[in-house]
Amino acid sequence: MTIDTTHFRCQIEDGIATLRLDRPDRKNPLTFDSYAELRDWFRALPYRDDVKAVVFGSNGGNFCSGGDVHDIIGPLTKMTMKELLAFTRMTGDLVKAMIHCGVPVIAAADGVCVGAGAIVAMASDLRIATPDTKAAFLFTRVGLAGCDMGACAMLPRIIGQGRAAELLYTGRAMSADEGSAWGFWNKVVDADALEAEAQAMARRIADGPNFGHMMTKTMLNQEWSMSLDQAIEAEAQAQAICMQTEDFTRAYNAFVAKEKPVFQGD
Amino acid sequence: MTIDTTHFRCQIEDGIATLRLDRPDRKNPLTFDSYAELRDWFRALPYRDDVKAVVFGSNGGNFCSGGDVHDIIGPLTKMTMKELLAFTRMTGDLVKAMIHCGVPVIAAADGVCVGAGAIVAMASDLRIATPDTKAAFLFTRVGLAGCDMGACAMLPRIIGQGRAAELLYTGRAMSADEGSAWGFWNKVVDADALEAEAQAMARRIADGPNFGHMMTKTMLNQEWSMSLDQAIEAEAQAQAICMQTEDFTRAYNAFVAKEKPVFQGD
Amino acid sequence: MTIDTTHFRCQIEDGIATLRLDRPDRKNPLTFDSYAELRDWFRALPYRDDVKAVVFGSNGGNFCSGGDVHDIIGPLTKMTMKELLAFTRMTGDLVKAMIHCGVPVIAAADGVCVGAGAIVAMASDLRIATPDTKAAFLFTRVGLAGCDMGACAMLPRIIGQGRAAELLYTGRAMSADEGSAWGFWNKVVDADALEAEAQAMARRIADGPNFGHMMTKTMLNQEWSMSLDQAIEAEAQAQAICMQTEDFTRAYNAFVAKEKPVFQGD
Repeated sequence: MTIDTTHFRCQIEDGIATLRLDRPDRKNPLTFDSYAELRDWFRALPYRDDVKAVVFGSNGGNFCSGGDVHDIIGPLTKMTMKELLAFTRMTGDLVKAMIHCGVPVIAAADGVCVGAGAIVAMASDLRIATPDTKAAFLFTRVGLAGCDMGACAMLPRIIGQGRAAELLYTGRAMSADEGSAWGFWNKVVDADALEAEAQAMARRIADGPNFGHMMTKTMLNQEWSMSLDQAIEAEAQAQAICMQTEDFTRAYNAFVAKEKPVFQGD
Repeated sequence: MTIDTTHFRCQIEDGIATLRLDRPDRKNPLTFDSYAELRDWFRALPYRDDVKAVVFGSNGGNFCSGGDVHDIIGPLTKMTMKELLAFTRMTGDLVKAMIHCGVPVIAAADGVCVGAGAIVAMASDLRIATPDTKAAFLFTRVGLAGCDMGACAMLPRIIGQGRAAELLYTGRAMSADEGSAWGFWNKVVDADALEAEAQAMARRIADGPNFGHMMTKTMLNQEWSMSLDQAIEAEAQAQAICMQTEDFTRAYNAFVAKEKPVFQGD
Repeated sequence: MTIDTTHFRCQIEDGIATLRLDRPDRKNPLTFDSYAELRDWFRALPYRDDVKAVVFGSNGGNFCSGGDVHDIIGPLTKMTMKELLAFTRMTGDLVKAMIHCGVPVIAAADGVCVGAGAIVAMASDLRIATPDTKAAFLFTRVGLAGCDMGACAMLPRIIGQGRAAELLYTGRAMSADEGSAWGFWNKVVDADALEAEAQAMARRIADGPNFGHMMTKTMLNQEWSMSLDQAIEAEAQAQAICMQTEDFTRAYNAFVAKEKPVFQGD
């Protein structure tokens, strides 16, 4: 089922939404319009029930080349502070919407994955690359700071503070080997296996338990800046809630019957 | 010296307490009783002076299979929210008790190390495995969320946010090789060397400086969610306290006398 | 241009300040005086405009042997709590001054890099070692705790909580291989290439965008204990500020003209 989106492609099949940017000739840059539409799409996710996992895929051998130089960077150099803040908040809102959408997001990144594209991968829950994927947080290359859309907070927690600092100061590309060794990519597969691998990972997630996955995602964010004692109490509450779902009983019954549980998301 | 515990084994020798769960035929599951007794045992540690390091060991080739399906999961599916929260708080209290016990804990995990067993390893200060150790945060397998006993807070800080997310969403086993490369296991040794290695590491810790180790453990937890400036001031205070211990003077005197210091814990 | 410092060497050339401790016969220990002078030097950095990157280098094959046993540790064993706290706060103030100086700091560590020396490397933004560099947080060896100058907060974020705990409890040396695999060292190069490598890295940083780098450094610290939502809003503001710099426009103009941008720091 292809969904009617204007500035990116969206297909929903059997609980898995597959998104891709759609200007492969230019390595899929983001524009003001695609930022806004993606933000709104992710913001709507908690209220719909047909999407259990999201794959943010590549197109034409590339993931995303970041904010378009002509469509975005040019105009930004002429804006007032009020307009600039409206823009940086919109881009940040995309990351916030991804984090708060309640559904695991899998980035499947081939080729170019830079600037805001690297951020979209970073803000996903799971990440798959190919040997040719080059991820670069290249904001310093355009005269800006590495602190874009949450990078100074999130990247250090994924690959460590020292490696993150290097990537954010220099803007240099992280190779697929580095990204794999450093824990940025969960898996690196050949380009022709990328789609299948991402769909398989999404299938596993989409099979549930979906309420549990929503809660895992919620708490990974929620506990970000809590003390350990606070986090443990927060998880005691969150898991107690999950213990009242039918999926928990279904899993127990399946175990007793020596069957594989079939989760239904409630 | 074997201590009189009912639901797990406990031996204390020369400052090192060695604990192990004791149902090797079922890979050492946790029960309501062993959870509670372990929590109480760790809660009592700050008030006793004969334990300088704890080894949480394996038994019969396995560490711990987590909450027992029949003894724990079955009953949970029938509980009220009040009862469920009492249970999740009790399990969380075990982790809190381990964190606040003031003595470094070394997990020595062979074979199965899953569910709450993986959490006990995670909540330890140092971790040793064997090539066959399989650690799995398999809460999603029983229809629950990955946020159990502090996992969404602690696991990302040990192995990185992306790898933690994968383990917590999928519940898949982390191999010993992965766990070693990712920093979960401090060391991987052959099964027949596990006990000796854990005891040697515990010996090194138990030899002190014990007041210093207590403070290191305290501050690793205390600074979890502080700002950097706050953490630096907190350490200035904590280390100044340590500088008034006799062990600090003993170390200086030993250095001047070109001897190895003998710490006494005050 | 050699700057007139008394307790360490300082050379400033073309925007790069190169510091080194200067008692190579004793592997460059820190003293009360060099601590204080370094703290003051880094504290003055935000107010001067001639330094765009700092290299903290080695001398005579070693980086720094930490607080001098005779000049510092001896006197500390005889101090009152008021004096001790004044000392630990001064050492913490050096780390705070490095963090808040607004300029990326590159540690280029050969040989011995221990105690407060390991802390100086840790508090730097980027770190280069040689195959012979041994970093040790050896505070427990002198009867103290691992919580020194922010180590319990910073080291876990660089190399992971489990590895940091091991180094901080045992005080054992981290080999160059370990430090590289764990993300402590950004690069390991042969000893005779260390200087050139550090200068090249510093050159790349010093070439700018310096306002952006200042903001990256600021935010890496600022977001340390924020929630993710707070961090994303903070970056929206910080990056909007950067978008009003001339360097952002310079980069855009250079891109349009297919030239390499020349940043000027405003």
